Amino acid sequence: MSATKKTRTQPPYELLYWPGIPGRGEFIRLAFEATGTSYTDTANESKDGIQAVLAMKDENATIDADGNPPAFAPPALRIHGEGKDGKPLLLYQTPAILNYLGDKIGLAGEDEADKHWVLAHTLTALDLNNEVHDTHHPIATAKYYEDQKEEALKKAADVREQRIPKFLGYFERILKGNAAKGGGKYLVGGKLSYADTTLWHVLSGLKFAFPKEMEAREKEYESLFGTFYPSVQEHSGLKEYLASERRKPFSMGIFRHYPELDRQ
Amino acid sequence: MSATKKTRTQPPYELLYWPGIPGRGEFIRLAFEATGTSYTDTANESKDGIQAVLAMKDENATIDADGNPPAFAPPALRIHGEGKDGKPLLLYQTPAILNYLGDKIGLAGEDEADKHWVLAHTLTALDLNNEVHDTHHPIATAKYYEDQKEEALKKAADVREQRIPKFLGYFERILKGNAAKGGGKYLVGGKLSYADTTLWHVLSGLKFAFPKEMEAREKEYESLFGTFYPSVQEHSGLKEYLASERRKPFSMGIFRHYPELDRQ
Repeated sequence: MSATKKTRTQPPYELLYWPGIPGRGEFIRLAFEATGTSYTDTANESKDGIQAVLAMKDENATIDADGNPPAFAPPALRIHGEGKDGKPLLLYQTPAILNYLGDKIGLAGEDEADKHWVLAHTLTALDLNNEVHDTHHPIATAKYYEDQKEEALKKAADVREQRIPKFLGYFERILKGNAAKGGGKYLVGGKLSYADTTLWHVLSGLKFAFPKEMEAREKEYESLFGTFYPSVQEHSGLKEYLASERRKPFSMGIFRHYPELDRQ
Repeated sequence: MSATKKTRTQPPYELLYWPGIPGRGEFIRLAFEATGTSYTDTANESKDGIQAVLAMKDENATIDADGNPPAFAPPALRIHGEGKDGKPLLLYQTPAILNYLGDKIGLAGEDEADKHWVLAHTLTALDLNNEVHDTHHPIATAKYYEDQKEEALKKAADVREQRIPKFLGYFERILKGNAAKGGGKYLVGGKLSYADTTLWHVLSGLKFAFPKEMEAREKEYESLFGTFYPSVQEHSGLKEYLASERRKPFSMGIFRHYPELDRQ
């Protein structure tokens, strides 16, 4: 627990995700860290915490003792006292967890339209996240990279040359369209949302996975890399988190650095 | 306009999606049709309606005259009178559109927990939808199937053998866990939600794309194919829609029937 975290005024949030990597759990962590919300990161904080991750995605489960359906996959978020009859509630699916949390921790938009765009832009950033995953696993998630490397070379070329510019160009235009309120720092309105933290993490992953490609492209997206990226990184709560040991380095998760998949 | 549609008590909903195919627009159509909600399907209903689809995803747009950001991709939904200062609101991203509509047309859950699971299960069904798309386009969305057929054969085998059973098994368990309230007919609670209509369409697409694979597998999932699938299909509003010409047949969209990609 960091000293910068608020004392608990919210229900205890328990993140259930694989230990040791940022992964999709990171999108939930960033939302908590940006708002100083207290949470536990079970599998990273206790030795047998991974048992709780495995239990919530048990492939024989139909419903748990608290009345919650099982999660399809991590991350999941357990919120004590917020479920049926005051029992723990179990949330799953990254964008659905963020949508639930958004209002409660002040990272959704100000009105109904803004709340929609925060969710919609988040989904778009997560679509890019998934496409980057597929650059090293285009054929089978459960097989080794080395067994699909030939296809990965083709997929990575397409994602780098066609898809990344399409997504970055889109977000650059969103920042420009919202410049009067957001000054290039926020995708929606005039304050930080979970769309910003989500996009920021995807951009940081792209820099890790494809350093040459991104170095060549960044200057084409002034708002995105000149204003948005450094601004989110300096945001109160995130700055401290990113400098801490709680922020796990990218390694062999969604974002991987295989030099052969980068621009040559 | 069908005679079974309610007269307008809701704001005019304008669906913006490619004409002639179900595609991702179908998830929005099914939500409207299941609830008798009036909507226009611009590109299917007027000859130059496709111009409105192209305009909302214009790759030079930053913000429209009504204060809406552009959509990353279709479908989008324009709702007259619900945007900033009473102007039209433009929604995008299939699950975000459904999340917005859910409460308004009575297809979200009953309480906060149920609303979350409706969104989360919808996202999971849409993940399967995306994986099926990738069976015929594993390398590059913008290239022809014929130019990635070798990789498609590998990808389709993995999706059929590993991924489809994982997703179907999950939803079978969700139906079983909710059987006391839903009787196998609903994923969440005791009435139809947009999670049900979304999963139903994905299952119908799987039957079209992989008829041999699905015929061999269906009997393993009693709740899903014995109760849920036929029940949703007979739901008031959907039954009439599915028998109408408004329901476009599957062809060369997300779900495609290439016999060589099916079980041999």
